[in-house]
Amino acid sequence: MTATLMIGPYSETDRDAMIEALDPVVVSGPGDVAGLDDATRAGIRAVAFKGHSAFGADEMDLLPNLALIANYGVGYDAIDVTAASARGIKVTNTPDVLNDDVADLAVALLLMTGREMEHASAWARSGEWQAKGEYPLNRKVSGGKAGIVGLGRIGREIADRLAAFKMDIHYFARSEKDTPGWTYHSDPVSLAEAVDYLVVALVGGKDTEKFVSNKVIEALGPRGIVVNISRGTTVDEAALLDALEAGKIAGAGLDVFLNEPNIDPRFYALDNVVIQPHQGSGTHETRAEMAALQRNNVLAFLQDQPLLTPVN
Amino acid sequence: MTATLMIGPYSETDRDAMIEALDPVVVSGPGDVAGLDDATRAGIRAVAFKGHSAFGADEMDLLPNLALIANYGVGYDAIDVTAASARGIKVTNTPDVLNDDVADLAVALLLMTGREMEHASAWARSGEWQAKGEYPLNRKVSGGKAGIVGLGRIGREIADRLAAFKMDIHYFARSEKDTPGWTYHSDPVSLAEAVDYLVVALVGGKDTEKFVSNKVIEALGPRGIVVNISRGTTVDEAALLDALEAGKIAGAGLDVFLNEPNIDPRFYALDNVVIQPHQGSGTHETRAEMAALQRNNVLAFLQDQPLLTPVN
Repeated sequence: MTATLMIGPYSETDRDAMIEALDPVVVSGPGDVAGLDDATRAGIRAVAFKGHSAFGADEMDLLPNLALIANYGVGYDAIDVTAASARGIKVTNTPDVLNDDVADLAVALLLMTGREMEHASAWARSGEWQAKGEYPLNRKVSGGKAGIVGLGRIGREIADRLAAFKMDIHYFARSEKDTPGWTYHSDPVSLAEAVDYLVVALVGGKDTEKFVSNKVIEALGPRGIVVNISRGTTVDEAALLDALEAGKIAGAGLDVFLNEPNIDPRFYALDNVVIQPHQGSGTHETRAEMAALQRNNVLAFLQDQPLLTPVN
Repeated sequence: MTATLMIGPYSETDRDAMIEALDPVVVSGPGDVAGLDDATRAGIRAVAFKGHSAFGADEMDLLPNLALIANYGVGYDAIDVTAASARGIKVTNTPDVLNDDVADLAVALLLMTGREMEHASAWARSGEWQAKGEYPLNRKVSGGKAGIVGLGRIGREIADRLAAFKMDIHYFARSEKDTPGWTYHSDPVSLAEAVDYLVVALVGGKDTEKFVSNKVIEALGPRGIVVNISRGTTVDEAALLDALEAGKIAGAGLDVFLNEPNIDPRFYALDNVVIQPHQGSGTHETRAEMAALQRNNVLAFLQDQPLLTPVN
């Protein structure tokens, strides 16, 4: 009897590696757990989870011997960790291995939005360059003021990169951190007032819902650019859309949205937004490391070894 | 009688500032010099030059009292400096003030090309995200191997930024430089063999024509990405197009081309190239600094003060 249940939309490579390592029962989403027969469900001790569909108390209760949920990804907001803890179920995630990729995408979104590179590309490709001459001037990014909302591991990677662009680094975090002279703000509105670029690197979940509020967005001002590589939930998206449409801020570079992939169609009408399809960690190298870390958490559990990256 | 001749396609802001500071005779290109009357031409002691149309011996000889050509831009390959020196004409340019912008664009082009951000944007905006799911995985950029061709002021700004992406920095220069442990290559083929990203930051002009040769491009290999923010002339463009079309290299991020803005239409058919319309220094902040430096060189000359940024 197999002890592992694999849930979610995995790539072929990741699926094959998991099957080879753990011989799991495979379903495509949390909604499929109820369809498994009693004996199979009773045999499951570990879930290897991927995706954004909720995995909560109901699903856990369908698996009476579940003791581990190993999430694929650093963000585990799809998993009800409180419910898991109440049942003695351990949760793991895959931190750190994706920090570089996500930070790279954040910096690229900031530069692309600031330097209007999608528009400039269209200018060159559409014939406007020949017909109208130089692309209109835009803004200097280096030397600007950047505010990081959430100076965790990913936030710090972003700040380290932006510092090399001679940017003046400000940040919000729950407490002041040991930094190379970056400016701490205990209040996100004060942070937004101080900077032109607001890069959101918060953890997802209930606690950070709409943390970047209407008030924060308006404090950013007309030169302001919002970059979000965290979760769509961390920003008041309706307020962001209003501000972008009204020109209250200059633009946004976004990898994450509410209701992905069925994002608010208002985004498509905006030409001051660079849209990415939640590809922050979407590289072959990093996804292979994330899959390996997920598998190794399951293997450690099955072999009674300490979990590598526990969450609760 | 006015002593300054302003040549080239200036922005309204730069033109107004120049007119206020120097009350120049204004023409739109080098070809217009011959149309000025003898007295006007005889009065010209300084040319404030902008653009990519050649300003050579013939134009200089139309201005018998010319003693300064103040170029707008760091690259002065449109000006025949040898001919100028032979006539005792000093040439100035506008170095350094644009380094940050050009380096920003180089890094952004590298990230955009590596992370396929134009394609990913189209994936999100076209509905493929909903229809087909996640954007296909691409490559991790951080931690990769980058080769800078030409470690001058701009090359060094680029390298400093890429180092913050934990990239392994290699470079070609005429001689080894004092660096924080970057790897020197005396031969561009050896450089290309060692890296996946080749960032061209050479000075333009005859000496560097096709310096990034077919052999260099082929040495880069199938994971290779070429970024060029220098001049179209520095790369063997036909060889680059052949390599891109044949998949001998992975892609290119280009701000400069031969015959701008009438660039080779083969580029438009390639989906592994990010095209920018030579906007490296195209920010309000930097162009204002470039225009001020050009004006200040002319003013220094007219007031018998030392030139700020002489070339010859």
